[in-house]
Amino acid sequence: MDKIKLEKIALASRILSIDAIQEANSGHPGLPLGAAELGAYLYGYAMNYNADKPDWINRDRFILSAGHGSMFLYSHLHFAGFKISIEDIKNFRKLGGICAGHPEYGIAPGVDATTGPLGQGLAMGVGVALGETIAADKYNTDEHTLIDHYTYVLVGDGCLAEGITSEASSLAGHLKLGKLIVFYDSNRITIDGSTDLSFTENVEARYHSYGWQVLKGSMYSYDEIDRLTQEAKNITDKPTLIILESDIGKGSPNKQGTADVHGSALGVEEVALTKENLGVDPSKKFYVEPEIYKIYENRKKELKNKYNKWMDVYESWSKQNPELAIDFSNVKKCNLIKDAIKAAGYKSGDSLATREASAKAISYYSSVYTNLVGGSADLSTPNRTSIPNSTVYSADNRGGRYIHYGVREFAMAAIANGLSLYGCFKPFVGTFLAFSDYLRPALRLSALMKLGVLYVFTHDSIYVGEDGPTHQAVEHLASLRAIPNVLVQRPGDPEETLAVWGYALENDESPTILALTRQGLPVIEKYDPNWIDNIKKGAYIAKEATKSVKKVIIATGSEVALVMDSLKSSNDDGKFDDIRVISMPCRELFYAQAEEYQKKLVPKNASVMVVEAGIKMGWERLADPDNILSVDVFGESGPASEVAKHFNFTNEKVLEMINNL
Amino acid sequence: MDKIKLEKIALASRILSIDAIQEANSGHPGLPLGAAELGAYLYGYAMNYNADKPDWINRDRFILSAGHGSMFLYSHLHFAGFKISIEDIKNFRKLGGICAGHPEYGIAPGVDATTGPLGQGLAMGVGVALGETIAADKYNTDEHTLIDHYTYVLVGDGCLAEGITSEASSLAGHLKLGKLIVFYDSNRITIDGSTDLSFTENVEARYHSYGWQVLKGSMYSYDEIDRLTQEAKNITDKPTLIILESDIGKGSPNKQGTADVHGSALGVEEVALTKENLGVDPSKKFYVEPEIYKIYENRKKELKNKYNKWMDVYESWSKQNPELAIDFSNVKKCNLIKDAIKAAGYKSGDSLATREASAKAISYYSSVYTNLVGGSADLSTPNRTSIPNSTVYSADNRGGRYIHYGVREFAMAAIANGLSLYGCFKPFVGTFLAFSDYLRPALRLSALMKLGVLYVFTHDSIYVGEDGPTHQAVEHLASLRAIPNVLVQRPGDPEETLAVWGYALENDESPTILALTRQGLPVIEKYDPNWIDNIKKGAYIAKEATKSVKKVIIATGSEVALVMDSLKSSNDDGKFDDIRVISMPCRELFYAQAEEYQKKLVPKNASVMVVEAGIKMGWERLADPDNILSVDVFGESGPASEVAKHFNFTNEKVLEMINNL
Repeated sequence: MDKIKLEKIALASRILSIDAIQEANSGHPGLPLGAAELGAYLYGYAMNYNADKPDWINRDRFILSAGHGSMFLYSHLHFAGFKISIEDIKNFRKLGGICAGHPEYGIAPGVDATTGPLGQGLAMGVGVALGETIAADKYNTDEHTLIDHYTYVLVGDGCLAEGITSEASSLAGHLKLGKLIVFYDSNRITIDGSTDLSFTENVEARYHSYGWQVLKGSMYSYDEIDRLTQEAKNITDKPTLIILESDIGKGSPNKQGTADVHGSALGVEEVALTKENLGVDPSKKFYVEPEIYKIYENRKKELKNKYNKWMDVYESWSKQNPELAIDFSNVKKCNLIKDAIKAAGYKSGDSLATREASAKAISYYSSVYTNLVGGSADLSTPNRTSIPNSTVYSADNRGGRYIHYGVREFAMAAIANGLSLYGCFKPFVGTFLAFSDYLRPALRLSALMKLGVLYVFTHDSIYVGEDGPTHQAVEHLASLRAIPNVLVQRPGDPEETLAVWGYALENDESPTILALTRQGLPVIEKYDPNWIDNIKKGAYIAKEATKSVKKVIIATGSEVALVMDSLKSSNDDGKFDDIRVISMPCRELFYAQAEEYQKKLVPKNASVMVVEAGIKMGWERLADPDNILSVDVFGESGPASEVAKHFNFTNEKVLEMINNL
Repeated sequence: MDKIKLEKIALASRILSIDAIQEANSGHPGLPLGAAELGAYLYGYAMNYNADKPDWINRDRFILSAGHGSMFLYSHLHFAGFKISIEDIKNFRKLGGICAGHPEYGIAPGVDATTGPLGQGLAMGVGVALGETIAADKYNTDEHTLIDHYTYVLVGDGCLAEGITSEASSLAGHLKLGKLIVFYDSNRITIDGSTDLSFTENVEARYHSYGWQVLKGSMYSYDEIDRLTQEAKNITDKPTLIILESDIGKGSPNKQGTADVHGSALGVEEVALTKENLGVDPSKKFYVEPEIYKIYENRKKELKNKYNKWMDVYESWSKQNPELAIDFSNVKKCNLIKDAIKAAGYKSGDSLATREASAKAISYYSSVYTNLVGGSADLSTPNRTSIPNSTVYSADNRGGRYIHYGVREFAMAAIANGLSLYGCFKPFVGTFLAFSDYLRPALRLSALMKLGVLYVFTHDSIYVGEDGPTHQAVEHLASLRAIPNVLVQRPGDPEETLAVWGYALENDESPTILALTRQGLPVIEKYDPNWIDNIKKGAYIAKEATKSVKKVIIATGSEVALVMDSLKSSNDDGKFDDIRVISMPCRELFYAQAEEYQKKLVPKNASVMVVEAGIKMGWERLADPDNILSVDVFGESGPASEVAKHFNFTNEKVLEMINNL
């Protein structure tokens, strides 16, 4: 470790950061100034990566949980040779630039996770570190070590105050994730002022209580940082929190140590004063000493050698372990859905809750999707999320594919994001639909990062029954559909469940939500012989009119059977002959189709009715509010059938509405 | 303390609970069986309450954070004389009964909070205990002690695993809420099985790290519970966690100590075996020994005496402190809104962010609404939530009305629920609109409990600018409108902000969300002279057509000014004469109006266009999707004006859409 070189890197990153923030006249100089040494240490010395292959699977990961300090990351990535140019940095926080205000995964190379909403970065780091243990267990052989790296996270006071870090850290301690190293930039300042205002807990003791190793030192001693990092690595059965005392905005003569420096540009004058204070020519802007690039040229060579050695291992390994290599490359097995449905062998009229059909899907697909890693927030049985022929993942069994997340919905979803970011896993998680609220901020990040995480949300409506309004989803389907790039799938029967599960597995571009019933649903007889293909478009014809279509009834989930049953329950005397029933498990997909397909299913001149045991919102595009059978208030505690009756989810009401259509 | 009597109560509650759960064939016997002693101790001996006045302000509070154990609560409330009859208990979990599956505030008397979504009960308890300190500081005098009670909470493993308990407990320790006593029913079992599966942290050490007193004992020793409770009371500057080792399902010979007993009825046979095991006649159902009622007759007398003494204090106090008495009775001051707007003296064209106007509202109204207690999750300055002429609440200053919640959105909202439940406060909380996701589960409980909590959500759209997609609300207006009984107010200018703030203060039946801008907005010239009254209906005419109305443009928030400006920006040659512009800060209120009013504003034959910087969902009821100017994807990082242009929020686009209307 050449401390003099690292010092130069740290200085360069401070200067570049405040220039970029000043140019944008917006941003957060506090962290890039305060924690520059850590960035220099990690990228300049400790971490293993390949700037030309930012998604190399065996790289050390770095997640900036305190995402507002984005210029910290961009400046070090720039020096380290990732494809972030000085021009890119000049465009920091500018429209169309790759250096967004907060680090955005998939936009700037080298950004290992989208961060900004506090606390989630650490939880994603737990997911990544967890992924490392599974991958190492799975792919490493006696002869070859393919996977062996660290996961570094940088958190601030804000991250640690958020509840999600408690959930994730408690689990990380329980699971003994020894290769997770979290640096705490302890500067004792938040936006409102001193941490004395609201955050005086003993963080060290708290992390001890989770079973972590906790170390303490100064941000401004490379020897100390290095010694502590080594100690962290030496203890292999505990994650480590390294508390580094620091000064926010270090170097800014008038703002260091104040809340002022957290989230606003320093101002032209203070930028100049800071540069002077740091011994740098204030007249130069966006100037990086050539020596910095020089230092990194050598470093890049070293890192390249390491990478090449790894590639040699990989080549040899894949030759000797062809099956593992296929698994590793995560090749999608196609055309599984029809086989799965055939294998299930459901017959029209069979009754099964869609959560049960989901269990069937997990059972079937997990044998082929060997990278599926599932779990539930302490609702494994009610969610039916167990993976047969798999074991439970634990500190003693890194080969398990099923994770007991405990009652920690939010951390679970963020950890699943981490697993997905890891690069060779397909994670799914489970809870009740009503409790999706608890994990919503992480789901939003799944969607923003375009991660194909699967969310298995059972107990999807008032049909939950006795547990009452706190447990009955009412607004959740709508509120989840609201998030861009999320697919909400509410299959109408067991077969549809197998189909949408399959499509969710194929989808690596967006999270999918499976809204599933607690109660049994009949397998419906489907009019459309190509329903398995057409369901990809969000909707298909479940029952066709025998005459020219005048009325279209759209239903989702358990309400498809309700509508079908209603039509059967009455002697129609031919008055139902002009009715088409559409099952629409995914409204977003349907709305995304070409107008032609939408009109083919829902002709312009037809009267349209919608039945869904949730709020109306969003269905008004298809039907007049009066023609939507919905639940627009909180649920009620009582047996499901009575609650359903209370909310008019009955054959009589459906028929009445059909007649009035 | 008569232990023999308490033992009888505990037994009676066990038996009644399993009978009720069996009758419902649904419910959670594990906790009522496992923790019966604590209920007997609290209601039978330790707590101070008046069963005939369940909302008596100086009662000891009890919050069953582990709400699934609802029969624990109902059985003890029944014995203690609250208006919950044996018939009510027979209707446990039945439609229309008052003994809902989970405790519902406002339904069964004596239920101090709606619980069920885990962890939130403890956080609400922190809010209640916090409220006690403010009320005591405010109303107690040298001569009279009006407020002096404890807040008890019962939590299980699940509650403690949830992140919200970390947030709330850390803050409670920081604020030294010495009269908060949390019992931890430590039975080492969750739904998935043993806590060894996922929850092995050292809870004792963790709570020490928050600055709590932590005590340990057995659930099954009254002496121990009593001694520990006394110790908790003796330490007045620390909240106390009392860890009680217990056996889930205690008394059930075949299910005690297993996950089986957590959430399903025991079954007829096991109910009989349990009764036998406990020495009770298994042939009797819903049978309560007359002695239990007898015991409580005496207890009720004692409690009544205490209550009467308190009433004497209250009478004497209110005579000597008439102003405090008015404040205490929390009388609404009316007709403030017009005065506030007048006092602000805004002139058409003045520019001010609605968050700034909100600061004005807080400043104006807080001098009259003296029970307003506000705070922010570490965004006091950006949210503009400070209360002028008030101090910051702290352990050393219980008279403060402003709370620094730290970076803990979820706990903040749950604590605000607790403050609202307390009975003499009007709480408001602040964060960015995009981070409302973090507190959504608590907001749902505000809505379900019908609490008039105010949510000040600033930075309400893509106009946030540089901070990018993680910080830009896009789907949030829709997803918040989705929750039943929530009013989302997105005022269009500073004056509207003062108005909707005022109405929110008057509303004690539902939470109100104020979605406010970061950026400046012009004060608009309003056509409707009665706009201040009409805005109560969710919408009013901001600009009227000079000819018969053919086109109606509906806008909210910052988009009202965009539309007005667009119309001004073009030489209309009379082609805008048939255009009406409606400002609709609250869509829910507008939709709730009689059809007559809705049609008066939006005539059936008019073409309608909507402009809102958020997703379309829900606007389709008023306008064709093509005629909605919306943002249906995640935002972008860049200067606000450029981001707005990127998303077509420009005069040109608005005019183009008007022309195509």
